[in-house]
Amino acid sequence: MAVGPATLPELKPVEGFRLGIASAGIKKPGRRDVVLMEVCEGASVAGVFTKNAFCAAPVTLSKRHLAQGAIRYLLVNTGNANAGTGEQGMRDAERCCQAVAELCGVTEGEVLPFSTGVIGEPLPVDKIIAALAAARADLNENNWESASYGIMTTDTRAKAACEQIEYNGKSITLTGISKGAGMIMPNMATMLGYVATDAAVDQALLQKWLSAAADKSFNRITIDGDTSTNDSCILVATGRSEVRVEEGSELAELFVAALNRVMLALAQEIIRDGEGATKFVEVRVDAAASVAEALAVAYTIAHSPLVKTALYASDPNWGRILACVGRAGVENLDLDALQIYLNDVCIVEKGGRAASYTEEQGQAVMNGEEILIHVVLNRGQLSESVWTTDLSTEYVHINADYRS
Amino acid sequence: MAVGPATLPELKPVEGFRLGIASAGIKKPGRRDVVLMEVCEGASVAGVFTKNAFCAAPVTLSKRHLAQGAIRYLLVNTGNANAGTGEQGMRDAERCCQAVAELCGVTEGEVLPFSTGVIGEPLPVDKIIAALAAARADLNENNWESASYGIMTTDTRAKAACEQIEYNGKSITLTGISKGAGMIMPNMATMLGYVATDAAVDQALLQKWLSAAADKSFNRITIDGDTSTNDSCILVATGRSEVRVEEGSELAELFVAALNRVMLALAQEIIRDGEGATKFVEVRVDAAASVAEALAVAYTIAHSPLVKTALYASDPNWGRILACVGRAGVENLDLDALQIYLNDVCIVEKGGRAASYTEEQGQAVMNGEEILIHVVLNRGQLSESVWTTDLSTEYVHINADYRS
Repeated sequence: MAVGPATLPELKPVEGFRLGIASAGIKKPGRRDVVLMEVCEGASVAGVFTKNAFCAAPVTLSKRHLAQGAIRYLLVNTGNANAGTGEQGMRDAERCCQAVAELCGVTEGEVLPFSTGVIGEPLPVDKIIAALAAARADLNENNWESASYGIMTTDTRAKAACEQIEYNGKSITLTGISKGAGMIMPNMATMLGYVATDAAVDQALLQKWLSAAADKSFNRITIDGDTSTNDSCILVATGRSEVRVEEGSELAELFVAALNRVMLALAQEIIRDGEGATKFVEVRVDAAASVAEALAVAYTIAHSPLVKTALYASDPNWGRILACVGRAGVENLDLDALQIYLNDVCIVEKGGRAASYTEEQGQAVMNGEEILIHVVLNRGQLSESVWTTDLSTEYVHINADYRS
Repeated sequence: MAVGPATLPELKPVEGFRLGIASAGIKKPGRRDVVLMEVCEGASVAGVFTKNAFCAAPVTLSKRHLAQGAIRYLLVNTGNANAGTGEQGMRDAERCCQAVAELCGVTEGEVLPFSTGVIGEPLPVDKIIAALAAARADLNENNWESASYGIMTTDTRAKAACEQIEYNGKSITLTGISKGAGMIMPNMATMLGYVATDAAVDQALLQKWLSAAADKSFNRITIDGDTSTNDSCILVATGRSEVRVEEGSELAELFVAALNRVMLALAQEIIRDGEGATKFVEVRVDAAASVAEALAVAYTIAHSPLVKTALYASDPNWGRILACVGRAGVENLDLDALQIYLNDVCIVEKGGRAASYTEEQGQAVMNGEEILIHVVLNRGQLSESVWTTDLSTEYVHINADYRS
């Protein structure tokens, strides 16, 4: 199940960034499960990673290599997360980087490794290394779509986004792909994201903009509250457009806005493809006194199994939403002052069911696939949104059957 | 579904505490849905209540009456929670108390009201009042078992516990009942609990002991992380045994231990009857540096949909447990120093799968109905346990179909 149309947008190539896909037979013979990405010399590369203390070996190694300097290759395998694999896992991640380095004539430190799939099984390094030559031979700037399939695990559809900026007669492209469907939660889900642009951006600035964009996109989605050991999002700026984006410029505003749109689209596609999802739900909290309380209310609703099962049943069960607001830990909450809406239908006001509300209105909203749960706290000026799914029997089936 | 045998223990009467059951036809004709409890004059009464800011009208009123002084009657209705009902809800709760007061010759302030069931619907006060005479006529010290059925909502079985203490040739009885199956979470679930003892205990001391016992029982269970608007637990000490329990005495130790056993049994019965539950799971965290970090790790595991679906599948998926420990927010966690066990089988050590572990060992544990997930942090001296269930397709069915 997934929500909304499964069509990919047109994915424009990014000069200086090539992708190659191969099949290593990690979990299923013939499945595309290895993606190699080549970054041109002189590019800036930024990354954000899972905050799970049990992060996987490839995450540890990617952070280390990124801190050391220039990056030339990204290697992704699916089917095995190389997580919870101890010292052997670190040696295996290093072996993968060494193999890419030898094959492509760079140093091991110029390669970032990424793995997603089963936790706790040894990485089949030999299979991955055997597929590298084919992946390298496949490298092409037009391979974004094929790569979007190559990084999928339990995803039922590929995820990608693309934006172009025209500025002073010149053009900048941003193209990205992502994967992830379960174990989704703030601070990076079982989620991989790769975005490239041909803009020229200093590394420190690129890192700053990526972190800020991740905070408003990948760190604002939740399917089941579980944070993965492997989440990573990489932003590459090749500079090949020869348009430099400087902090504080008019172009920077346009660039950051486009980056945020690409990141949010990639994150929302993950929610639309959430395990067993039949609804795409935005939980928006307005007029909060702080970002923290807005997020506390939003996540309490978004994580509530009772709200999520009501969404699955298309049941406008406002009592469950109201109970979540009440237990979110907001101090001195004035119950009589807040309102709760489903889309634009007011369901709660003055501490109870809104006088104007009818069950038919609520039912009409809940029958839709895309639903806004909108809480107006009337305590301040701050707003936050998070995105989530319903909780279906299919979610339980998927996670009771799949060994992730 | 429920875990373990459904037999009730022998429920010994508590002198000075009578229970009467009636049918008001609130949700289903003929169902026992009103329970009246009579407390003898001179008894001490203590209570703990939901911390949900959206607490129901009867909770607000019970707290107020309890603070005013002596209590003589407890009135419980099921089928309607009188929550999210605004000012009308408060008037309805007051009308119920007035009716009991008139019928029984006490003041309104001597009555505590309790409601559980659907949120946001007006309380059918007239139906409840019409059933009061029958409930009063039924008052009897031997009605504990019948009352345990009378307070059920989505429960599939009645829940009760009983302990007796012999001390210096005298006897003290503690008998209790509880209800609750979903919306279960620390800080009181959709849970009602009533415990009576014939010991004589000062009110302030009784309140202290009840709060402490609730913290280690009802506040340590979670089914779905949702805290109800209506949770209440009441402890009555009638004094009719003529044995006074004083703080710091040898008898106090025996009494508190018995109270804790009764409360824990009532709480654990709620978990065994958790909505859709097929497993009864203790999550124990040992050798923690603080209570807070022990509980953070325990609840992260107990709330994880991925761990809970793996439990439902009887899948020894240690990677999901490990990922929870990693994201629980424990600072400076030494991954290599901790161990994770399923019952007494070590599954994780040195940051990965234990060398001695075999899948067969883990599978044997997971095939059981009662499972201990045991995390040894090796950071300090503190231990905490929480109890939870698995997440089954049946849980989703129940909550997608039932308008609670």
